[in-house]
Amino acid sequence: MSYRQIDGGVTAAKGFEAAGTEAGIKYENRKDMAIVYSTSPCVCAGTFTSNVVKAAPVVWDMDIVDNSEYAQAVIVNTGIANACTGKEGLDYCIRTAERAGELLGIPRNAVFVGSTGVIGAQLPIDRIVAGVEKLVKAKAHTREAGTEASRAIMTTDTINKEVAVEVTIGGKTVTIGAMSKGSGMIHPNMCTMLGYICTDINISKEMLTKAIKADVKDSFNMISVDGDTSTNDTLLIMANGLAENERITAEGADYEAFTEALNFVTTYLAKKMAGDGEGATALFECRVINADTKENARILAKSVICSSLTKAAIFGHDANWGRILCALGYSGVKFDPEGLDLYFVDGDRRMFIYGDGKGQDYSEEEATAILSKEHVTALVDMHMGYEKATAWGCDLSYDYVKINADYRS
Amino acid sequence: MSYRQIDGGVTAAKGFEAAGTEAGIKYENRKDMAIVYSTSPCVCAGTFTSNVVKAAPVVWDMDIVDNSEYAQAVIVNTGIANACTGKEGLDYCIRTAERAGELLGIPRNAVFVGSTGVIGAQLPIDRIVAGVEKLVKAKAHTREAGTEASRAIMTTDTINKEVAVEVTIGGKTVTIGAMSKGSGMIHPNMCTMLGYICTDINISKEMLTKAIKADVKDSFNMISVDGDTSTNDTLLIMANGLAENERITAEGADYEAFTEALNFVTTYLAKKMAGDGEGATALFECRVINADTKENARILAKSVICSSLTKAAIFGHDANWGRILCALGYSGVKFDPEGLDLYFVDGDRRMFIYGDGKGQDYSEEEATAILSKEHVTALVDMHMGYEKATAWGCDLSYDYVKINADYRS
Repeated sequence: MSYRQIDGGVTAAKGFEAAGTEAGIKYENRKDMAIVYSTSPCVCAGTFTSNVVKAAPVVWDMDIVDNSEYAQAVIVNTGIANACTGKEGLDYCIRTAERAGELLGIPRNAVFVGSTGVIGAQLPIDRIVAGVEKLVKAKAHTREAGTEASRAIMTTDTINKEVAVEVTIGGKTVTIGAMSKGSGMIHPNMCTMLGYICTDINISKEMLTKAIKADVKDSFNMISVDGDTSTNDTLLIMANGLAENERITAEGADYEAFTEALNFVTTYLAKKMAGDGEGATALFECRVINADTKENARILAKSVICSSLTKAAIFGHDANWGRILCALGYSGVKFDPEGLDLYFVDGDRRMFIYGDGKGQDYSEEEATAILSKEHVTALVDMHMGYEKATAWGCDLSYDYVKINADYRS
Repeated sequence: MSYRQIDGGVTAAKGFEAAGTEAGIKYENRKDMAIVYSTSPCVCAGTFTSNVVKAAPVVWDMDIVDNSEYAQAVIVNTGIANACTGKEGLDYCIRTAERAGELLGIPRNAVFVGSTGVIGAQLPIDRIVAGVEKLVKAKAHTREAGTEASRAIMTTDTINKEVAVEVTIGGKTVTIGAMSKGSGMIHPNMCTMLGYICTDINISKEMLTKAIKADVKDSFNMISVDGDTSTNDTLLIMANGLAENERITAEGADYEAFTEALNFVTTYLAKKMAGDGEGATALFECRVINADTKENARILAKSVICSSLTKAAIFGHDANWGRILCALGYSGVKFDPEGLDLYFVDGDRRMFIYGDGKGQDYSEEEATAILSKEHVTALVDMHMGYEKATAWGCDLSYDYVKINADYRS
């Protein structure tokens, strides 16, 4: 492991500035807009929702990733998702990018836009534009500014989510800083709800794209809060090259070091998002080992963390392991139910729960103790091959229902 | 429509007897075992869970459907699912059928067994055998006996579920009576949790099989409570021929009349199960019309009724229609989001909610009133073709979490 975690978020890497502000979009007395800005142009890559109903900012950002050589800024608002808003919604999105571009002195198609919140409502464009003006004035390359931005993009999140690492590449210190938000309508498919990764690495667009697309398969795409794939899922990575390492244009040791550090950042945020799922009291992890194929390992792990019944049992600290077996069984993967072993894991300790086709003689009391922790891990040994995968979710609580029964008011 | 609904359940058709009894398997002072018996041998067909983790009674029943020419009885217990119980569990299942066969004077492989309840626990076989003895003595061809059986197979169900119809076929009165149970781990795939259909029609095994396999695609397979496909899903249909109609051995008017009546029975029970889903306060129906293919219509309708976020909004009587659009969008079906219309339906009235790519100008107050009813219907017009499908689910409430956080204790 050649990287090391450092204190910081989106402003950790050289040349990145950020800010958050109160634009009064939906909530009062709460920061609800953020900016991320790079003093130098960035090569960019991204992954976006697979939902055919795509929010206006997703359509806008996809176009930038596909057609702009460089981008330099991101403007995010919370409160309104700008999804299912027709031509008017896309116009508002463009006006947001246009105003930011004017003030920053960059083309509008170098400005990404992100929105999250209620689907169907139109943005209050005057307040958005006023917010952009405040953000451009306030942006700064400070530790605090990164945190402020990560707080401004929260909706039902209970904690802000940011992380940073340093890694030495070609003798130069490369930094990757990032932030993301959850915490409902989280079942990313090619991407997470909103995630922004800012790095000063010098890398080609092609290799940056390759790195992020490979990465999400085992990070953001392996989490779920409620099985609902959002209309707004957006993960963007911006690289401004200010670390001055020799440009990465192919695979090799430098690329490996970067992807390893990147995977720490994405997995860190993915786990934070799962553990902070709406109403969650615990992070629920499922590790599948010795599966026949990598894809089957992923499907099995994800089926378990998506099971409503299993999630409710975790909330109740109830070792109802039959529900885990059931979720493995309906995942679509073929296997012999008598051939697998199931454990609950607590640190270095494995508690043997199911094997030889039936429940094992474990202590319910000890199982309940393990299931009462903030991080609950189920380990499934398929005994079919050598592939593994891990998925992260959360428990299903009264508060999930409460938050979502009346989200709009 | 050539059939008519009549009062009754599994004992409505000629020659069918039933009973329920207290065997003390898990609950006290509650009937927890049932029998259904036909005085004449029945041709049988069934559909079973697609979960690769299959309970012992599912394995047993599948074998009877595949290899026995006739069957004549069903023994059901609640409290313990007899799933993930290894060889011991299958032995208990066989001993149950064996004892019933001895007492009824029929081969053991003419006795279906059904179990529902906690996964992983072993059956208390002595109590099961004692229960079988009581059931065989008590069985009767009365209206009340049918209801008693339908009550004895309930677990977290709040109402028993039975239905009967009469239909004239070849000048003879044919009766179909049925019962089923929900109400958690309900996301049938080829079948429902437990459902038993008893008819006196004279029909070949081949045509009976064809009828039930076609039927479930639009009835039981179109409901979901929580997305968890059970290990025990079993739907059986038994036909003893006592109606004395000319034997149905091919498609034609008689077969059509039968399948039409059968579909009323299965749809009736499917809707009852969805509306009585664990913790449910409302039946949530999604009708998709004018889809390009039948399969896409089914996928779209089912995606909507499975969305946790939509279900929570229904519980909150909140017209958060963006979540319906979102669920259509991640279903996997390709379509143009600007091309569809969404309505809420109340009797003959359609409230236009979304069209032309954006929300319509409807009254939130009226929408809330519609969403506060016990039966909430969303209608999606895809404008892509001529195919339609309907799916049924329920809302997601605090009580769902409560019931499932501590189901085992």
